[in-house]
Amino acid sequence: MRILGIDPGLAIVGYSIIDTEKEENILISSGSIQTDKSKTDAERLFEIETDMQTIIDKFQPDEASIEKLFYFKNQKTIIPVAEARGVILSVLQKNSIKISEFTPMEVKQMMTGYGRASKDEVARAVRMSVKYEKLPKLDDTLDSIAIALCHSRNNMILGRI
Amino acid sequence: MRILGIDPGLAIVGYSIIDTEKEENILISSGSIQTDKSKTDAERLFEIETDMQTIIDKFQPDEASIEKLFYFKNQKTIIPVAEARGVILSVLQKNSIKISEFTPMEVKQMMTGYGRASKDEVARAVRMSVKYEKLPKLDDTLDSIAIALCHSRNNMILGRI
Repeated sequence: MRILGIDPGLAIVGYSIIDTEKEENILISSGSIQTDKSKTDAERLFEIETDMQTIIDKFQPDEASIEKLFYFKNQKTIIPVAEARGVILSVLQKNSIKISEFTPMEVKQMMTGYGRASKDEVARAVRMSVKYEKLPKLDDTLDSIAIALCHSRNNMILGRI
Repeated sequence: MRILGIDPGLAIVGYSIIDTEKEENILISSGSIQTDKSKTDAERLFEIETDMQTIIDKFQPDEASIEKLFYFKNQKTIIPVAEARGVILSVLQKNSIKISEFTPMEVKQMMTGYGRASKDEVARAVRMSVKYEKLPKLDDTLDSIAIALCHSRNNMILGRI
């Protein structure tokens, strides 16, 4: 099974492609969509839509896993992230790709056993959980791998792989 | 000039089509996209995308006007509204439609001269500002007319009509 992991954002969308075979996860590709802040929000959102479709066409994922937002105090950047997430969800639905969603706390909990783990602890757990030639350096891209791995683990638990 | 006014939401998207000729605004059509809450967010967002494209294809608006969100305390419903807004902005951009954005307070200010006007005061101002055969009853649809009228007024001020 091929999973597309997505860490949504208006400026940066981190993405990764993971193949799960038996109990092994293999990182096939990863990267980011980065949009130009001199453009309008509508232009940036349409760019995200177009680039997501290109990634789907290229890698043909079976399922997708995306960060779920939740509201908390003073989270002023949540609007543009939610706008980008809306566009991405619609593209996934257009391509009939099954979607799982995990909050940042769920990702930390599933990857490290601790919902308030640090970025470094999550990164270490990612390195131990996936076969790779080269791991991305960008936080958003690394997060997208963790999000894809959560989906893979859920599938294993449910006996879907 | 033909303007598409949009009041975004995940459950209900209010929309209206206004033709502006000289200093007159004529309501050509109005309605709402309503999505089923038993469906997933991704399904609902894709439905909004598809329906918005159908409205654009049918009415061929020159420009669009959409409610702008802004963050304030305890606004827990903002995430699904922002997700829907993201999808709508991307559809408008795909169709190369110029977009104006107004916050609810700006709409009230422009329509009534008072940024904290009541729904009834805004509704009264809408009735006086547009020619219509039948006004919609749904708040979200009526709001979309007010949003379109703000865009029309800005155009008049800027001498674009």
